[in-house]
Amino acid sequence: MKPTITAFERSPDRGRGLARDMRVRWALEEVGQPYDVRLVSFEAMKQPGHRALNPFGQIPTYQEGDFATFESGAIVFHIAETHAGLLPADPMARARAITWIFAALTTVEPPIVDRSFCAILESNQPWSKDRLPVLDQRVRTRLRELSDHLGDADWLDGDFSAADLLMVTVLRRLGSSGLVEEFPIIAAYIARAEARPAYKRAFDAQLAVFAASQNA
Amino acid sequence: MKPTITAFERSPDRGRGLARDMRVRWALEEVGQPYDVRLVSFEAMKQPGHRALNPFGQIPTYQEGDFATFESGAIVFHIAETHAGLLPADPMARARAITWIFAALTTVEPPIVDRSFCAILESNQPWSKDRLPVLDQRVRTRLRELSDHLGDADWLDGDFSAADLLMVTVLRRLGSSGLVEEFPIIAAYIARAEARPAYKRAFDAQLAVFAASQNA
Repeated sequence: MKPTITAFERSPDRGRGLARDMRVRWALEEVGQPYDVRLVSFEAMKQPGHRALNPFGQIPTYQEGDFATFESGAIVFHIAETHAGLLPADPMARARAITWIFAALTTVEPPIVDRSFCAILESNQPWSKDRLPVLDQRVRTRLRELSDHLGDADWLDGDFSAADLLMVTVLRRLGSSGLVEEFPIIAAYIARAEARPAYKRAFDAQLAVFAASQNA
Repeated sequence: MKPTITAFERSPDRGRGLARDMRVRWALEEVGQPYDVRLVSFEAMKQPGHRALNPFGQIPTYQEGDFATFESGAIVFHIAETHAGLLPADPMARARAITWIFAALTTVEPPIVDRSFCAILESNQPWSKDRLPVLDQRVRTRLRELSDHLGDADWLDGDFSAADLLMVTVLRRLGSSGLVEEFPIIAAYIARAEARPAYKRAFDAQLAVFAASQNA
């Protein structure tokens, strides 16, 4: 059965692939699973209809027959568990990949999102200018640690996995901050992931939604 | 084989059970798995020896023979996958519990940690006073949504699971902020979890470490 995911009707990232449906699209493309997309407005996301799918009123959600779930991390994990290609079969390698899924979303992502908030959403607040350098340092600490871990390796632990997919979507949120460029190993890691055909198909699909919203 | 976890030699929370080893201790107590604890100083956490276990230089880590992992979420998930009692057997119920694991750690925890940072670590920064009410509102939004989801239910989705364990450890970080008390459903949910014998054993074990560090 073809799953249906939800995505922003008009993504605030203007088609740069930073909204969290990108993760799910990319995972579905990696495993070769066709899917449908239902677009949701900011207003509809907060209504009871959408909250029945996600109590926090966010995208993406994932529906497949009677089964419905939310949280991009959980959806990518579900896709990885039910299709071949995104998690190793060996139990110890699988557990390590799962460790890196949590590292991406709970250790690396929070300071990066915090930095984006400060630089963009809170840019008019009186504290934004003084606080941003503090947050930049927090992000640099994580990037240095991640870079040291990667070293000469192509991916976080052995073959490309759901953990790399999530980590790269997290790192891409640094966008034009200039922070990634300070760590050539990380810049190369992101570029390696973005060169994957599945990434490109997912990116083009979300960009097409934004382009269509501009012409509407 | 008895696993070994790491914990702070001197926990900055002064034994209130807010450090992330508490999650792992609680999970091990829920499934009846004995464990050893190795205490780590702040200095040692950032040295190569500990970074070989966790590249980000944090606690807890988890070692069991040849297998080593990190990230409290990943460790709790590993315990839940390898022991009975923390994840439902039914595949759809299991996937929903995993969804709530990610919701706890990636949707509910970040604004709560951000608020703690602002209230405690950044309390001397010039922006702390103006920023705290903004963060309180972000937390209230998530607590309202969580409260609406819980309603009359005892737990997030059916029986108590690893998701409840993680969600409650996240909510407990609100401590004396007064925010939990605004949502009686959530206060009752936390109290229900804290009344579990496994919670109490885990809490007492981490408190004993803190008490011993005070007498050292």
